[in-house]
Amino acid sequence: MKSLDQSRDHLTAVRNAIRPTTLIRSPRVDELVGAEVLIASETFQYTGSFKFRAAYSAALRSPASRLIAASSGNFGQALSYAASLTNKEAIIVMPDNSAAVKVDAVSRFGGKVELVETQKVSRAQRVAELASQYPDAQVVSAYDHDDVIAGNSTLGTELAESAGDFDAVIVPVGGGGLSAGLICGLMQAGCPMEVYGAEPLLANDGKLSLDAGKIVVNEGEPQTIADGARTISLGQRNWAILQNGIKDILEVSEEDIEDAVRSLFRLANLKSEPTGGLALGAAVAHKDKFKNKRIICVVSGGNVDTDLFCRIVGCE
Amino acid sequence: MKSLDQSRDHLTAVRNAIRPTTLIRSPRVDELVGAEVLIASETFQYTGSFKFRAAYSAALRSPASRLIAASSGNFGQALSYAASLTNKEAIIVMPDNSAAVKVDAVSRFGGKVELVETQKVSRAQRVAELASQYPDAQVVSAYDHDDVIAGNSTLGTELAESAGDFDAVIVPVGGGGLSAGLICGLMQAGCPMEVYGAEPLLANDGKLSLDAGKIVVNEGEPQTIADGARTISLGQRNWAILQNGIKDILEVSEEDIEDAVRSLFRLANLKSEPTGGLALGAAVAHKDKFKNKRIICVVSGGNVDTDLFCRIVGCE
Repeated sequence: MKSLDQSRDHLTAVRNAIRPTTLIRSPRVDELVGAEVLIASETFQYTGSFKFRAAYSAALRSPASRLIAASSGNFGQALSYAASLTNKEAIIVMPDNSAAVKVDAVSRFGGKVELVETQKVSRAQRVAELASQYPDAQVVSAYDHDDVIAGNSTLGTELAESAGDFDAVIVPVGGGGLSAGLICGLMQAGCPMEVYGAEPLLANDGKLSLDAGKIVVNEGEPQTIADGARTISLGQRNWAILQNGIKDILEVSEEDIEDAVRSLFRLANLKSEPTGGLALGAAVAHKDKFKNKRIICVVSGGNVDTDLFCRIVGCE
Repeated sequence: MKSLDQSRDHLTAVRNAIRPTTLIRSPRVDELVGAEVLIASETFQYTGSFKFRAAYSAALRSPASRLIAASSGNFGQALSYAASLTNKEAIIVMPDNSAAVKVDAVSRFGGKVELVETQKVSRAQRVAELASQYPDAQVVSAYDHDDVIAGNSTLGTELAESAGDFDAVIVPVGGGGLSAGLICGLMQAGCPMEVYGAEPLLANDGKLSLDAGKIVVNEGEPQTIADGARTISLGQRNWAILQNGIKDILEVSEEDIEDAVRSLFRLANLKSEPTGGLALGAAVAHKDKFKNKRIICVVSGGNVDTDLFCRIVGCE
């Protein structure tokens, strides 16, 4: 058990290493939602998503010299960069059909890419193989990990400090790393703001879990456009926090996710990835709930394939 | 002549009304330039560009109840919104072939659009007609105006306060409103940072003016993709400040402007309009000048037609 002082020092070190979130106001987004909306954008976080908060926290605290993670997306880039800053090696297990641009991004941030033929070997299997090959290495989960949640809690602290008197914050939910961290950060700062999750309707295991009072697992990886929310289920550590800490999880259709990405681009000049559009999508789809309130929508990241992005923002 | 106290109160009021600039760091942009680059983005300023600083300052100080400006772009939106916030009416004279999206944006921010058949009547003529039709109105220049320069000086004050110890700042130059304001703000704050202008090679009247020691006027409106820099010449008030206050003006080719917009999008998740890409374009095109230095690139705005933007960021 870490002492309170150690925890405080650790969180200070994380905050010194990360970029503060970007707070954006747009009268035209307010008009769209019918509420006062503050956008808290993690698209300008190092490596382009909130995952750097988590990855840096995990890398900094890990005694291992080598970190292994399975990720085809933002956590891979974030852990690669965090490892390079903390003089560690990162091995990122990615499916062999990953987009070249994603493989390239991991390499550019200093990570070692292990491509795996997912038809033959699962990513989890390959991670286990690598872990036994490198006994000095630590396997890091992108969400079900105390240091990951602690890293993400810095966003809650920041919002409590600088975002003023808001009624609610809406945050994307995949494995629950960001939402659990946000809840912890707000609680530590004594901020009573309500936290809502936003989840793709196609990947609504979080909402089903809340309703069932236990973790519900998706049958397979949900094929939502919000690729950061394609998790099989909430993590155990995340569920323990969300179960009582989250007000509700709001479901968002694929169409509403794309609409939100388009609105962020056109009305607020913000480049968001589809997962980053979830919170605004939820605010618009459930606008009765937030009418005339003051809400924060967290845009979790901005890393998106250019062709996909242009298709989304280009169509009416 | 306004007293120093009045000026100080005015600038405080402007700063309370605007959004602070967004400071962005991207290791991949650093790598591209070979320098430590801080991006100061005005794309999240109200109405999507730095022009709101200028417009709000002018609207707040004007005794008139009606403001008239010729603008097909950012100043029109900015003045419309600033007028609505200060209980004035804005009349924006736009060419009748303006993109519908731009006309729509002015209307949405509360401005009254006057379309003019530019084949028959020039915008300046129409502005003069309106001014005699409304004797209570004030005509506001987008750059050659003391209150406009004062409004833009708040960006210099912000950079002096929060951007630390940088060697130089690069800023787009059109009529010289932003660059002159920036120089004034830095001087008032006692900040010795060098200021470079960035100008399209196709619209290099500013550079030619510096070389000639007097204002050089373009023969017609230059057809650069950086539409915010399509001015005929620097303004008189702007020239008076730039003449000695600017270190140099760097020319940027059309190709380098587009490359910069693409790099901002891909490496820094930032949506910029072409004019907004000028400073990074200059930093890349003149990288020998900035090698291993610490520089700030100002991204002046993010309002760009979606089709044009997707064409720029989509091509290799």
